[in-house]
Amino acid sequence: MENLICLTETEVDTFLPNGRLEKTKSLLKQSRQVCPSSFTSDAEWIELLRECNPEVLVAAWKTPSLPENLSEIAPALKYVCYLPGSIRHLVPRSAIEEGLIVTSWGSSVRRTISECALLLALSCMRRVRYWTEQMHFDGGWKTPETQTQSLFERRVGLHGLGLISQKLVDLLKPFTNEISAYSPSVPDSIYQDLGVSRSETLEDLFSTNDVVIELAALTPKTELMITEELLRMIPQGGAFVNVGRGAVVDEAALARVAKDRLDLQIGLDVYGIEPLPLDSPFRGMDNVMLLPHLGGPTTDRRRDAGDHGLENLRRFLANEDLIDPYDLGMYDRAS
Amino acid sequence: MENLICLTETEVDTFLPNGRLEKTKSLLKQSRQVCPSSFTSDAEWIELLRECNPEVLVAAWKTPSLPENLSEIAPALKYVCYLPGSIRHLVPRSAIEEGLIVTSWGSSVRRTISECALLLALSCMRRVRYWTEQMHFDGGWKTPETQTQSLFERRVGLHGLGLISQKLVDLLKPFTNEISAYSPSVPDSIYQDLGVSRSETLEDLFSTNDVVIELAALTPKTELMITEELLRMIPQGGAFVNVGRGAVVDEAALARVAKDRLDLQIGLDVYGIEPLPLDSPFRGMDNVMLLPHLGGPTTDRRRDAGDHGLENLRRFLANEDLIDPYDLGMYDRAS
Repeated sequence: MENLICLTETEVDTFLPNGRLEKTKSLLKQSRQVCPSSFTSDAEWIELLRECNPEVLVAAWKTPSLPENLSEIAPALKYVCYLPGSIRHLVPRSAIEEGLIVTSWGSSVRRTISECALLLALSCMRRVRYWTEQMHFDGGWKTPETQTQSLFERRVGLHGLGLISQKLVDLLKPFTNEISAYSPSVPDSIYQDLGVSRSETLEDLFSTNDVVIELAALTPKTELMITEELLRMIPQGGAFVNVGRGAVVDEAALARVAKDRLDLQIGLDVYGIEPLPLDSPFRGMDNVMLLPHLGGPTTDRRRDAGDHGLENLRRFLANEDLIDPYDLGMYDRAS
Repeated sequence: MENLICLTETEVDTFLPNGRLEKTKSLLKQSRQVCPSSFTSDAEWIELLRECNPEVLVAAWKTPSLPENLSEIAPALKYVCYLPGSIRHLVPRSAIEEGLIVTSWGSSVRRTISECALLLALSCMRRVRYWTEQMHFDGGWKTPETQTQSLFERRVGLHGLGLISQKLVDLLKPFTNEISAYSPSVPDSIYQDLGVSRSETLEDLFSTNDVVIELAALTPKTELMITEELLRMIPQGGAFVNVGRGAVVDEAALARVAKDRLDLQIGLDVYGIEPLPLDSPFRGMDNVMLLPHLGGPTTDRRRDAGDHGLENLRRFLANEDLIDPYDLGMYDRAS
């Protein structure tokens, strides 16, 4: 039995810099470090798995897929510590069914997503999208009629009050105390601890906030939940930001509302179809700010995902409960 | 004697909404409200001043200039409560010499400027300037090589530690504790209270921080103080933000550095010459984010300037010390 660390040099540098690789090895005791680019075929990878029969595999984007007959190839494998986000291409569903423990970067990405939400909210208030085009390509400058807005003392509404939203509340607090959220399943005690008011309905959330930030998880229930009717309820001069999942929003409706209501500012990092299609109506709209799904861990913060993986590795080896291990529901919901 | 409130309807709505006008009138007791656009000539304005001979004048952008022989026209005038920023076009220097008390929005604008600094710093980290062009006009999307950065745990250096910088520290604290500042005249106790480290030199500030934010006041000593040598010291992948005064920076050098060092991101709200000339080398650069001097009070926060004016008015009438009344030095330094 020999544990496996299967990472490229770049993956080591980005997820496990500054002694984290050494810490991983010292936790694992018996381990072999291999580089995915050294395999010339899938068969070679399968052979390595069979030969090492690891209890733990530390993996990232470039790690080759695990085979469907994993329990025959590597019967000792109990835990896959996947450092990035989405495990679907690496781990077959059958392995989760058979009890393989798998973790990913999970909640460690919450602060960069909340930072992206704040950036988009501030950008909407100052109309960064409009001014970038004006200043760079149209020789623009402000006029006495120029309207600008601040986030200070504005009413901010969050759809969803999970870990990312909770972190976002920290970032919003220096600007405003008027924060509300619609998230029926979250108990009152969490609202109270955060100093956030409960919106009883989405209609309430959209009609009484200057800035509405979309952070709800995508489920069959939330898909297309944000309708044209809701979007049109945002008060005059308001903003709508989405850093959660694009498919929660009726994007065709959002594009119509953006076109009709030039008083609204819209900031998007996520889309129903990614990459955003070339003919998306959002491209070119001067009241819609667009980022290419950059909310997740920035290059410099992937080490947070490494720390998260290391903590889970420590817990696994100490027989403690892991943070957010995959179950079949999470597996099926993952993108 | 009749006090004067000389504001347009728009100025009332923007500076004194939600009962603030009524509060102004109740503080002043005897007052007349006039609209600057009702005067058909300067002579009419002078006649009104003579007729009312106010002790207090509440003024804004559209209020006509006060005459050089003010003490003959309105000998009772003791206090001009100017609600916006720069008084040079309204009040002659001689009036300050003769003891007229004048206040402007002063430090009440600090939070929107600090907000603008945070917006530019976050925008530099995620390369908003670049992505705005890519997403809207070039059909762009991220690639596996895309590099992004966060403000979390970054080293931030402030040039200047006045009231705006101090407010900015509040906004930066949720992101990082590694904040330093170069501001020789500010005592250690303020650094300690803020949890900010002192940089002993500008070289130290520029070479040891990932994000350098320019907030120094413009004086003969600070003019062109930020040289090419300093700008080139910013570490790989860093950012330079200016929300203070453009003329503190050698802008020709900044443009050269921006062109040579595409790893640097630059965020500017202020310029040596404003409006920014059409042929400015900054226009079009894809690592330089530009705003048209929007840092000062946003339209929706001009009411903060109204509150500041009201507080000064209350203090004047109660014979208390005013907040930041103009002296000749401030008058001469004002833009």
